[in-house]
Amino acid sequence: MEITKLEPEKKHGLVVVLTGNGKGKTTSAMGMALRAAGHQLKVCIIQFMKGDLYSGEWDGVKMLGDRVELHATGKGFCGIQGNPYPHSVHRENAQQAVQLVNQKMLSGDYDVLILDEINNALQLKLIDLDQVLAILDNKPQLLHLVLTGRDAHEEVLKRADTASRVEEITHAYRKDIEPQPGIDY
Amino acid sequence: MEITKLEPEKKHGLVVVLTGNGKGKTTSAMGMALRAAGHQLKVCIIQFMKGDLYSGEWDGVKMLGDRVELHATGKGFCGIQGNPYPHSVHRENAQQAVQLVNQKMLSGDYDVLILDEINNALQLKLIDLDQVLAILDNKPQLLHLVLTGRDAHEEVLKRADTASRVEEITHAYRKDIEPQPGIDY
Repeated sequence: MEITKLEPEKKHGLVVVLTGNGKGKTTSAMGMALRAAGHQLKVCIIQFMKGDLYSGEWDGVKMLGDRVELHATGKGFCGIQGNPYPHSVHRENAQQAVQLVNQKMLSGDYDVLILDEINNALQLKLIDLDQVLAILDNKPQLLHLVLTGRDAHEEVLKRADTASRVEEITHAYRKDIEPQPGIDY
Repeated sequence: MEITKLEPEKKHGLVVVLTGNGKGKTTSAMGMALRAAGHQLKVCIIQFMKGDLYSGEWDGVKMLGDRVELHATGKGFCGIQGNPYPHSVHRENAQQAVQLVNQKMLSGDYDVLILDEINNALQLKLIDLDQVLAILDNKPQLLHLVLTGRDAHEEVLKRADTASRVEEITHAYRKDIEPQPGIDY
């Protein structure tokens, strides 16, 4: 059987939003990084509030070579039990991450820019709506921009080309099953 | 800052189901493959009804080396416009894929087994509910089993440890934007 290889007549840099309370937002963004690497595209992933906890994707993306780079910023999830840092520290970290986003976005070096958990960072007031809208407004035309995290802002969703809400049907933690490597982190 | 590396006290082979009509099911499964590879786990991906159309993940997973293998089976989506094959041919292909699933699952060679679009294959009667439930019943205890595709069967969802419904909020094709490499395929 012949394999068809699509090639769009018109290239379009998409705004993709992944939100909702279920498992599969960051994971899906990582799948896009893998897929994009397969197409020889260049990918930059900037994770908000995630610098404190090892996740398998950190080493996974290294296997994709120079095509994909990942920056895990922050000091863990702001406000969750056990996180010792005050809001001001989380905000300072997130503000630095926004600077990195703008620098990477305007460098012209990437085809895909993934802003992991940026929706949460906005919802938690670590960054401001104006900052996120400025990122969207300044996006180079052909760059794909992927924004993940719960509670995506209405104004962000309005600007999305593709947006999904990942709803939890059930989750293993409800059965007291601990997070499992490779699946949960 | 110190980075915490979780290690579950009890390993648990999860059943993960990704269903719904939105973008991010197969993509999320690919993200789990990437994450699992980062943890040095072995992954087998078997795709149903997908052999006809190139997708970036085919080359993406090759970059993950011997840890991840991908089998794209079938002759495209059964019943969609432009697909020339009768139901009987799609069923024969899917039946062969089920044999492959059982062989790979019972080999003991993998930590994660991803059955991409198996929910659709069941819904389209290319495979039978008994076959899917037998896969779930025979799953080795520590194997993670990931099932993707729209219209997951109620009996499959009942057996899931973690399940998400990915709902479309919007999609680029509604604006007549063609599928874009790296994001859509």
